Amino acid sequence: MDNRGQHISQQFDAELEKIRNQVLSMGGLVEEQIRNAIRSLTDNDAPLAEEVIKNDVKVNNAEVTIDEECSHIIARRQPAASDLRLVVAVIKTITDLERIGDQAERIARMAIRLSEMERPKNQYSELKTIGNHVASMFHDTLDAFARMDPEAAVEVAKEDLKVDTEYDGIMRQTLTFMMEDPRSITRMLDVMWTARAIERIGDHSKNICEYIIYLVKGKDVRHTSLEKMEKEALR
Amino acid sequence: MDNRGQHISQQFDAELEKIRNQVLSMGGLVEEQIRNAIRSLTDNDAPLAEEVIKNDVKVNNAEVTIDEECSHIIARRQPAASDLRLVVAVIKTITDLERIGDQAERIARMAIRLSEMERPKNQYSELKTIGNHVASMFHDTLDAFARMDPEAAVEVAKEDLKVDTEYDGIMRQTLTFMMEDPRSITRMLDVMWTARAIERIGDHSKNICEYIIYLVKGKDVRHTSLEKMEKEALR
Repeated sequence: MDNRGQHISQQFDAELEKIRNQVLSMGGLVEEQIRNAIRSLTDNDAPLAEEVIKNDVKVNNAEVTIDEECSHIIARRQPAASDLRLVVAVIKTITDLERIGDQAERIARMAIRLSEMERPKNQYSELKTIGNHVASMFHDTLDAFARMDPEAAVEVAKEDLKVDTEYDGIMRQTLTFMMEDPRSITRMLDVMWTARAIERIGDHSKNICEYIIYLVKGKDVRHTSLEKMEKEALR
Repeated sequence: MDNRGQHISQQFDAELEKIRNQVLSMGGLVEEQIRNAIRSLTDNDAPLAEEVIKNDVKVNNAEVTIDEECSHIIARRQPAASDLRLVVAVIKTITDLERIGDQAERIARMAIRLSEMERPKNQYSELKTIGNHVASMFHDTLDAFARMDPEAAVEVAKEDLKVDTEYDGIMRQTLTFMMEDPRSITRMLDVMWTARAIERIGDHSKNICEYIIYLVKGKDVRHTSLEKMEKEALR
């Protein structure tokens, strides 16, 4: 038995496990950023928003670190087949995680702007609803990644349709407010941009779910219908 | 002399050259999409906008094809150092190219909506200006990629600051129109979303410029200042 070969393969497995864990830990950080950004908005908590803005650099650093780790693994280990798919999926996933982080920062900046304006009676409950929806969608995305579960990934992708419907509702409602009361335009625009940033987090989560299906099933399901995605995931 | 080794290395070079050309050809397609989307908007040309929407599938297909090509190269050739950086940079670049394609499609959809509404006297000249600016910024990005020129990449990244300033101007102007004439709100919102989509193309172009610097200089300049980026590029 070739002990040396086995030893190298164990080391390699440990390295792959390490980048998976790094992705999950970066994901945990991003989830905290999303939840704090939403809370800073709905609880009118500007200091919390400042914290989110300050912490975005941690998300950026995580992306750069994991990227380097992936390049090292490709160069040293020459991964093939499913190992290679894992590394490529990780490179793509962390790009989306970083951009979700940017959206959280954007929400936090809006929270600060909105904290300086008159508050509506409902304390932006519609943003709270869609925000919590997207935060839990993102949580499920990380779960699907942790368990490498393509079925769960399809379920998350389906949620994105509901988020889009909620988003459309907020857009219509905000437009109505603007037309009824032009003095509300500036504030309503900020609400629109915030809703947009939240909705984008849903899109990025869906992207990550597509990478998970690609990773486990070896089939690229981007740019296909939800039906086709589901068929591949359950195959 | 090991002819076989040389032969393999020539094949490998040819493969790397092939994916570089594929990226440039995908980029050319995306540039056409951007220019047609802007033109459909400013020339009030709904059929051209329909064409842009229809052609987005070509951009999507190019991304999937090049992605597969990159995975094959990594698996077969075990690239190291600068070859590996090229492949990783390509994987990242085409993600941004695909998202630029999505923004072009979004602009085309707005062009169709706006074609059904009253036109301003200036025929959206402010969108034409920022649109052409971003289109030429994107063109220079492809040039910098073709020549693997980090200095040119820094110049493009600098342009993005000017685009951001133009974008802020359009946002302020549109807001003023909305407040002066609430009947213009719906149309002005579409102008805002269009300006936003154009501005995002600038951001994605800047991302690609950062990958070019990483590729040539081996230094990750994402999330750093323009000054630091320039220092690395000229080193």
